[in-house]
Amino acid sequence: MNTPEWQIRCNQRKQQQLDLIPEEWRIALPPDSQRNVLDVPRTCGLLSARELEITDTVDVDMLLYKLRTAEWSSVEVTTAFYKRAIIAQQLTNCLTEIFIDRALARAKEVDEHLAKTGTPIGPLHGLPISVKDQFCIKGMETIMGYAGWIGRIAETDSVLVELLHECGAVPFVRTNVPQTLIWGETYNHVFGRTTNPYNRYMTPGGSSGGEGALVALRGSPIGVGTDIGGSVRIPAGFCGLYGLRPSYERLPYCGAVNAQEGQESVSSVLGPMTNSVAGVRAFTKAIIDAKPWRRDPLAVRKAWSVSEYALEEHGGGDKMCFAIMWDNEIVKPHPPVRRAMEIVKGALEEAGHTVIDWEPHRHLEIYKNVESIFAADEGHDYRTDCALSGEPLIQTMSPDTGAHAYALDAPFAKAVVGTPRHLNAWELWQLHREKRALRKSHLDHWEATAARTGTGRPVDAIISPVAPYAACPHGCNSDAFYTTLFNTLDYACAVFPVTQADAALDRPDPPHDFRNGEDEAVCKLYDPELWHGMPVGLQLAGRTQEEEGVIGMLEVVDAALQTYKESQSQ
Amino acid sequence: MNTPEWQIRCNQRKQQQLDLIPEEWRIALPPDSQRNVLDVPRTCGLLSARELEITDTVDVDMLLYKLRTAEWSSVEVTTAFYKRAIIAQQLTNCLTEIFIDRALARAKEVDEHLAKTGTPIGPLHGLPISVKDQFCIKGMETIMGYAGWIGRIAETDSVLVELLHECGAVPFVRTNVPQTLIWGETYNHVFGRTTNPYNRYMTPGGSSGGEGALVALRGSPIGVGTDIGGSVRIPAGFCGLYGLRPSYERLPYCGAVNAQEGQESVSSVLGPMTNSVAGVRAFTKAIIDAKPWRRDPLAVRKAWSVSEYALEEHGGGDKMCFAIMWDNEIVKPHPPVRRAMEIVKGALEEAGHTVIDWEPHRHLEIYKNVESIFAADEGHDYRTDCALSGEPLIQTMSPDTGAHAYALDAPFAKAVVGTPRHLNAWELWQLHREKRALRKSHLDHWEATAARTGTGRPVDAIISPVAPYAACPHGCNSDAFYTTLFNTLDYACAVFPVTQADAALDRPDPPHDFRNGEDEAVCKLYDPELWHGMPVGLQLAGRTQEEEGVIGMLEVVDAALQTYKESQSQ
Repeated sequence: MNTPEWQIRCNQRKQQQLDLIPEEWRIALPPDSQRNVLDVPRTCGLLSARELEITDTVDVDMLLYKLRTAEWSSVEVTTAFYKRAIIAQQLTNCLTEIFIDRALARAKEVDEHLAKTGTPIGPLHGLPISVKDQFCIKGMETIMGYAGWIGRIAETDSVLVELLHECGAVPFVRTNVPQTLIWGETYNHVFGRTTNPYNRYMTPGGSSGGEGALVALRGSPIGVGTDIGGSVRIPAGFCGLYGLRPSYERLPYCGAVNAQEGQESVSSVLGPMTNSVAGVRAFTKAIIDAKPWRRDPLAVRKAWSVSEYALEEHGGGDKMCFAIMWDNEIVKPHPPVRRAMEIVKGALEEAGHTVIDWEPHRHLEIYKNVESIFAADEGHDYRTDCALSGEPLIQTMSPDTGAHAYALDAPFAKAVVGTPRHLNAWELWQLHREKRALRKSHLDHWEATAARTGTGRPVDAIISPVAPYAACPHGCNSDAFYTTLFNTLDYACAVFPVTQADAALDRPDPPHDFRNGEDEAVCKLYDPELWHGMPVGLQLAGRTQEEEGVIGMLEVVDAALQTYKESQSQ
Repeated sequence: MNTPEWQIRCNQRKQQQLDLIPEEWRIALPPDSQRNVLDVPRTCGLLSARELEITDTVDVDMLLYKLRTAEWSSVEVTTAFYKRAIIAQQLTNCLTEIFIDRALARAKEVDEHLAKTGTPIGPLHGLPISVKDQFCIKGMETIMGYAGWIGRIAETDSVLVELLHECGAVPFVRTNVPQTLIWGETYNHVFGRTTNPYNRYMTPGGSSGGEGALVALRGSPIGVGTDIGGSVRIPAGFCGLYGLRPSYERLPYCGAVNAQEGQESVSSVLGPMTNSVAGVRAFTKAIIDAKPWRRDPLAVRKAWSVSEYALEEHGGGDKMCFAIMWDNEIVKPHPPVRRAMEIVKGALEEAGHTVIDWEPHRHLEIYKNVESIFAADEGHDYRTDCALSGEPLIQTMSPDTGAHAYALDAPFAKAVVGTPRHLNAWELWQLHREKRALRKSHLDHWEATAARTGTGRPVDAIISPVAPYAACPHGCNSDAFYTTLFNTLDYACAVFPVTQADAALDRPDPPHDFRNGEDEAVCKLYDPELWHGMPVGLQLAGRTQEEEGVIGMLEVVDAALQTYKESQSQ
């Protein structure tokens, strides 16, 4: 059988990418059987001690300080992260576009500006930043996982890239995505599969899975992902990172490409993925301070709110009341996820906060509403983009060989939608009516918690799983409702790392009364030995357009966790 | 022929409304042939001198001051406005729901609160406020111009009404609308036609035409209308009022009924209509300060910005640069409208500002995009609501008898859409893509004006006609693109009165090179004698979500106009 034309083009494009890796940056690869590769950047010999010091600086505030005081030049910082990104690429296949010369030229320009003027260009002066393969960069392809998009050259920078330049940053690599973007894993026909550096048998999540793997390996200090149903939060959770899902249009999406472009019922948003709370704050504040509404007509005209960040509406951050959603009552979380919530509860209580249980509210209706919106065109958008090249629409994220035994023929998300059908405009409007009513009901439900918090206020934030599991084998990430819930409600959310799965502590639960086939399958999937060592993250959800408050609370929770872990280990 | 069932129900409902007018508030009606009825409230004898003093207080700040200092009680202020509203009803048929006892009971409650606590309830303490027949009030019908909605009782207050209560206001009447809401005039089968008190042969505009007529007759100090294509601004302009069209979701629409509910591509918004800039500011600031996002999940979480209101981004309000859109290049404005723009130009220049010409940008594409969105369901929504009762869908706003000779068989809006067809979800998404691109293009066009303002900034605001004419005879208001342009772009806009048409000054233009049939028809419609005395308003458009800045600039423009008029008349 002849290799189809689209496959030939994909192979050529992939080879072109491989050829861009400098010979001297190629490392001796560990065997495919080595699952955990986190240590390779330190052991492979490519990075100097100084480059390791630079790239191991997870505190973005510190990186920015050293850059703007010229203790470290942008050229050396960018070079260090570039080398480490190329190592990450060789280990996990996380990159798409590689443009070393261009990035270093930009870094040099930034250094020269500082040398000449004595002033940094902006708040992200000199910092290399990676972006998902949706953020167009002038003169460069944006392929977004479609064979048919190979050769599609952007005529302008996306607004995000423009603002990163204004802020002094150095966009330096682009990262991998799944075909269609609407998967919680990362595989496409052009660039292939991205793996999780904690365990390459596992997915880094998706759709911003390239960023997840890259940032986990410290190949980038801040990566920019996008999130329509969990695509920032899932890879952040699966890869042990911090991440932010802002509300619709708080950060500028204009000029980025997207799947289902023009679908504005549940909008995709962009957010940072990074190894420190400082990275979340620095990125978000810098982009908002750059007034994105000057360039993106949809961007919310709301300046960074100092008072919201100072938690003025949350008692100044003292004696807050958090609610934990232990279970969304659709898919029960695995033992490591439950233990992570117990740790956070302990940490918050030790820090003087109150923790109550969150009562799930109309989840099945919300689930059905959002999945019906995503299916409203009956896949016309995806089919159209596949038809450009003739590549098939990917039906499973399971590898052809070495797939995990677990497979779910009918994820619950499909069951809740029923038989898909291309809706007409009026039918779509009815879904909007329903969504508005559900959002109103959920808001009232949240407000009503004021009766039981003891603070006089409603619950300050909800803490919940990111997913029912901590990562999972390729092809097994079937459930995204823990994250999609908050896309539908448009609550600002942050993800933070809590612990790692532990085979000794996280013994399997006995079977419970299963709510649906997926709940059962996810339960049976759990294997303490397989999961051992995987990072477990949780998410913190605040109110719509409350990004500053969510970041402020994230700092409180993160500090409480550090203190608690120290006290527990003593 | 038997009277159809729906007509019988409409007649009964209308009679029920008439019966609610107290016998002692019925006035000796002027003859139908008396076109201008503005003087009737003063001459009809129903209002005492004090009631005239109260209702003639157009400065809302003054009303609020007298209410919160108990110089005037809410009961007497509400009674005075109620009586005048009932006069307005008898003259222009502007009301729908009348609920005197309920409103006065509320006013009494407000007065008692102040007497007991010494503290006003909130920033709108004691002020009667009228609302369009979309804002549900618990236990009351919301008919919104559909026979089939008669008897539809609201179970809860709309969020706006809840917040008005929190602010201490007294909702006291509801006002008339056209069937479907998507007309720039005000006529439906249940409550009939609302007329313009400046000239009852003319329409007050629509769809918030009930508010327009009511507030023009000073039957309400502040009315709340809604605007999806000009429905606040057109009646504000046609009736000589101030009005605000905020950006999508800045003020809380939740719990109000609507046409095409769930159509979120170009959202309807709510805004105040009033006789003073103070009224616009007092209402808008009070509602935003009440944090509508606590109750409306879609409301923008943006506190009232003191710095935006102080015009910090506009040079502090000194030496600004305004651009006048003399003509949208689709329908040429009538002479009185052009003269109004010349007056504003003179006033602004005299006040030290710069005035340049606005260059229209891609208007035909924007026009086609927005009209295609409005037609996306091929009228399914309207037909469904008409089918509830069997009433016919209204095809013209022309009266059955006494219609003006002018009639436009094919408004240009229909021509730009082409043959309507019920779009599918994917096709609607393509309109969204197109709209985003047009908004981006228009934003860049605006930003680029920085090169020619002389201020170093882009143009501070655009000043444009509200419509190509100052009001017009019933059935003749075919063109709404001067307003709909800004709904599509989501620019915050305010309307302000400038002058009155003057048969001596505003002589007809010679025919120009007509761009389309509507442009020709509108040109030929103009009759200096018919228009003489009609108010002419203009609109000021600022940026998306820049309500505070728009109100701040409105104050600057209004003050400049007062000064200029005084200097001209000396």
